[in-house]
Amino acid sequence: MPTTKLWTDEDAAADPRVKAVFEDIRATRKSDFVNNFWRALANQPALLERTWSSIKSVMIDPGTLDPLTKELIYIAVSTANSCSYCVHSHTAAARAKGLTAEQYGEFLAVIAMASETNSLANALQIPVDPEFTVR
Amino acid sequence: MPTTKLWTDEDAAADPRVKAVFEDIRATRKSDFVNNFWRALANQPALLERTWSSIKSVMIDPGTLDPLTKELIYIAVSTANSCSYCVHSHTAAARAKGLTAEQYGEFLAVIAMASETNSLANALQIPVDPEFTVR
Amino acid sequence: MPTTKLWTDEDAAADPRVKAVFEDIRATRKSDFVNNFWRALANQPALLERTWSSIKSVMIDPGTLDPLTKELIYIAVSTANSCSYCVHSHTAAARAKGLTAEQYGEFLAVIAMASETNSLANALQIPVDPEFTVR
Amino acid sequence: MPTTKLWTDEDAAADPRVKAVFEDIRATRKSDFVNNFWRALANQPALLERTWSSIKSVMIDPGTLDPLTKELIYIAVSTANSCSYCVHSHTAAARAKGLTAEQYGEFLAVIAMASETNSLANALQIPVDPEFTVR
Amino acid sequence: MPTTKLWTDEDAAADPRVKAVFEDIRATRKSDFVNNFWRALANQPALLERTWSSIKSVMIDPGTLDPLTKELIYIAVSTANSCSYCVHSHTAAARAKGLTAEQYGEFLAVIAMASETNSLANALQIPVDPEFTVR
Amino acid sequence: MPTTKLWTDEDAAADPRVKAVFEDIRATRKSDFVNNFWRALANQPALLERTWSSIKSVMIDPGTLDPLTKELIYIAVSTANSCSYCVHSHTAAARAKGLTAEQYGEFLAVIAMASETNSLANALQIPVDPEFTVR
Repeated sequence: MPTTKLWTDEDAAADPRVKAVFEDIRATRKSDFVNNFWRALANQPALLERTWSSIKSVMIDPGTLDPLTKELIYIAVSTANSCSYCVHSHTAAARAKGLTAEQYGEFLAVIAMASETNSLANALQIPVDPEFTVR
Repeated sequence: MPTTKLWTDEDAAADPRVKAVFEDIRATRKSDFVNNFWRALANQPALLERTWSSIKSVMIDPGTLDPLTKELIYIAVSTANSCSYCVHSHTAAARAKGLTAEQYGEFLAVIAMASETNSLANALQIPVDPEFTVR
Repeated sequence: MPTTKLWTDEDAAADPRVKAVFEDIRATRKSDFVNNFWRALANQPALLERTWSSIKSVMIDPGTLDPLTKELIYIAVSTANSCSYCVHSHTAAARAKGLTAEQYGEFLAVIAMASETNSLANALQIPVDPEFTVR
Repeated sequence: MPTTKLWTDEDAAADPRVKAVFEDIRATRKSDFVNNFWRALANQPALLERTWSSIKSVMIDPGTLDPLTKELIYIAVSTANSCSYCVHSHTAAARAKGLTAEQYGEFLAVIAMASETNSLANALQIPVDPEFTVR
Repeated sequence: MPTTKLWTDEDAAADPRVKAVFEDIRATRKSDFVNNFWRALANQPALLERTWSSIKSVMIDPGTLDPLTKELIYIAVSTANSCSYCVHSHTAAARAKGLTAEQYGEFLAVIAMASETNSLANALQIPVDPEFTVR
Repeated sequence: MPTTKLWTDEDAAADPRVKAVFEDIRATRKSDFVNNFWRALANQPALLERTWSSIKSVMIDPGTLDPLTKELIYIAVSTANSCSYCVHSHTAAARAKGLTAEQYGEFLAVIAMASETNSLANALQIPVDPEFTVR
């Protein structure tokens, strides 16, 4: 149950800003599928535009990290923040970018390990070693 | 200020289990440096042994994710959990594994983007699209 | 699926402490609706009484922050803590207090921005500027 | 101890993109003070530009929420995410925008209350009342 | 909706490592019930083995903390991390170990109180008293 | 660096409400030590009174959970919320109530294990088994 309306394509057709973003999502992804995240953000056109623009820049524009690595980092953050929607959407995205069962298993092991040691370091309030600091 | 004593090498020399782990850390990493995390865990030898054994298996044993990718995933989780110690130690580890300034900038952009959309999806309580579910 | 029983009005009628709180909720809110949060807390009458008393004092008693601002702050915390129930109940409360679509859009933009910069500041471990400290 | 270099004004002078953002920060805020957050982000000019542009749009451009309310929402999120830097910088910003001791006391009471009930609702896994859902 | 397949007993019968863990879960717990957590982890046999082995060591092997206390600590962490599955499974486990309604009420009061003061201390950035530090 | 003034005993002497709470803290704990948490809350007398009253009721009044168990639950929540101050103050309190090194080691193992499985269950979005639900 969302806290806002999810815009249908008909709703979007009536608002030029939303319509333009939905069209760009479809063109960029080469798919007719517009997922609920964008249909919810459509209630706030300015936020929709800015968020889609950032996603394109951060996740789609080519850079030095490969797309699958970016998705794994995204899932890691989303898991720690307990964002069910984001875990689902970016795990699906990672699979679409070639994530194998073996890679997923290693990924899970890393986030489990990190969560475990985060908990220990925070409980023990371990002071940062001077060796780790930037000179 | 830690909540427990940090074991010196002299302390470790007096406990065979701690001594063995410290030696294995040094041998595995080919470095004399044993960071404070292990010096704090030394107060609980069983926990020290199990944690080091897991870290070796998860972060050091070869697999299908490369070591730098694992470190980035580790920092992502540690940042979301606000673990200052872990952010410092694994950012240093990532740099030791070749992280460039450009890669770090892209990493930061991804975790910032993920945090932002996590917040939006959690506030809007967006329902998961059926397209994202496992068949 | 709650982890405890949700008390019906019949259940409440049989326990004077729970009955008194439910009646005060209805009288204070001028509505017959008692939401599930209180029906779950009813299993622990002392906790129910203390929590309702605090909510009245903090959220309902007049003060220097207006009621809608308090609800927005409440939703912000609930989103960051990924509390689905609280996000739903307090977004509904904010709407009942007059939240407009435009205000909600700006609110979402602020929590998204805060989440983003929280992530960056925690990853970069930025030291607090002396200018920000209390004299 | 940051994980990256903090750029001085001399460093910034040598990079046109960073220089432009620092100048815009000073002009927008009508103050010579550029806080450490921007000096750390300067290592990644694209991220610096995008983040500053978003902050201006979200926090400074006039809208329907007043500037002090936005700062309180920002502090609420930053507290829940345990971002020490952000709590400090935005509490200072809220004070600069007129936050009184009385308002701050009420704000603290609201975030404490929200944290408390978030914890209860998450522990009890309370189901969302149908009355709270969007029609 | 899980992000992975949940293994049936038939699936498990075909993989010796998964089969062995499922059998050990049943023998250790003296029950035929294998809950979904293990059925999901079965996709990664190495992670399944390591996690079950740790759970046995940490939660089942006798020690100085009684089993019910361990479950309460587990629920406390799971609540703060907003892990719905873990809250449900460990609240059920606590009840199986004798948790009374009165104890549960006191437990809820403690996690609510802790969440409240965590929020206050993080917002106020209260410095640690020297009296609390380890000598 | 706190975001507010820490009240000295001289400051407290000038405000009857703060003075009364400080005196009750000293009488209740049979110690002259008033820690910084209360000295920061003193800026908001109503919040100070309500918080101290709750702490007395929840943590000090006798009940069915023993005082050390309550402290461990408190530290567990504070660790997950990354509240450095609360981790320090309640670890000190647990030690004052008799926490042994062995118990502390087991406690650390439980919170590490919980954090690890929280992360796995949230990443895998494991559906709650019907067996765990309340009838």
